[in-house]
Amino acid sequence: MIILSNSATTHTDIILRARALGIPTRVVHNASILNAVGASGLQLYNFGQSVSLVFFTDTWRPDSFYDRVKENADLGMHTLILLDIKVKEQSEENLARGRKIYEPPRYMSIPLAVSQLISTESVRRSGILDPTTTLAIALSRVGGGSEEHIVAGTLQELMEAPEEVYGEPLHSLVLVGKRLHHLEVDYAETFALDRENWRRVAKDVYGCALED
Amino acid sequence: MIILSNSATTHTDIILRARALGIPTRVVHNASILNAVGASGLQLYNFGQSVSLVFFTDTWRPDSFYDRVKENADLGMHTLILLDIKVKEQSEENLARGRKIYEPPRYMSIPLAVSQLISTESVRRSGILDPTTTLAIALSRVGGGSEEHIVAGTLQELMEAPEEVYGEPLHSLVLVGKRLHHLEVDYAETFALDRENWRRVAKDVYGCALED
Repeated sequence: MIILSNSATTHTDIILRARALGIPTRVVHNASILNAVGASGLQLYNFGQSVSLVFFTDTWRPDSFYDRVKENADLGMHTLILLDIKVKEQSEENLARGRKIYEPPRYMSIPLAVSQLISTESVRRSGILDPTTTLAIALSRVGGGSEEHIVAGTLQELMEAPEEVYGEPLHSLVLVGKRLHHLEVDYAETFALDRENWRRVAKDVYGCALED
Repeated sequence: MIILSNSATTHTDIILRARALGIPTRVVHNASILNAVGASGLQLYNFGQSVSLVFFTDTWRPDSFYDRVKENADLGMHTLILLDIKVKEQSEENLARGRKIYEPPRYMSIPLAVSQLISTESVRRSGILDPTTTLAIALSRVGGGSEEHIVAGTLQELMEAPEEVYGEPLHSLVLVGKRLHHLEVDYAETFALDRENWRRVAKDVYGCALED
């Protein structure tokens, strides 16, 4: 009996392989970041497709996520970005030499994620991500009681905030879409690094009808 | 203390009102149809925005959902459609006369939902919904053990199937987007009314690379 939450082809694949071997399977549903992200106050109905952001290296900076973000942004949808983790990875040298020595685990931080986003925008230049006028919400350990951290701000504010404000990993980041409801702004304001600027950008840039 | 799952502005609004009255609030996360829909085998990352479909009447046939479905379809995304329910509704006559007599509860069935979709397509004519070449998956009571029903097919197959195959309400319907992965097709085939036709449409119309 394999018990899984089924949300990606990774899971589907495991289930299909188990079945082919005659192993009974059963899916048990639970909360996941894909719906617990509602803790940010952004309504789930207005999320587009989700994307993953991987650690950039000097030679590998995959930016296909940018196309998905743009598709969502063009429709005014929010985008949930899942940040990369590296656990039980070998260095190239250890891998080449067949040494089973693993690097310490790494979890992408919010400031690093935002800097990668801005760096990608500087290459792709569709104008969908702007340091001072794009709003985003960082989340970690949602539903984890006092370990839960939710932080809202412009991309620049999020990039410049000290890592401590984001709590412990794993982290996720939501890019706020332009089809933004004033109740979403009101709710997320609680989490804003700079409440005044949060409301100002929501009103002036996103065109949200907010009370003064 | 109010305990809620926060996924829509309805919830956000309640929480904000409670806070304004000094009532402590807490959000508890759980599975919801928004992620349990993964039971269909369609990957959650490829869902676009979700929509609701209300009961049409002779004089009221709101079709703004169609614009959202089209936005998702144009990107090849799946669309989760939540079907209308009417509970504790008064007839117009009883409402006018101030009689607190309520109509029996109504839950939109899958065949009715599909017929409303096809009827809307016949008015809007974007070509995104076709009885014989649009695939969809119906779900009810996901995670409810033996009460769970998942049924896959073309819109026409779903519309013509007897209501019993869909189980008890509440029902949801997923319109399958064109950015379809062969593992999604393989997994959902288990639920297909006509397995052969399911694979044929996925291959010939959706362009899915399936093994024969």
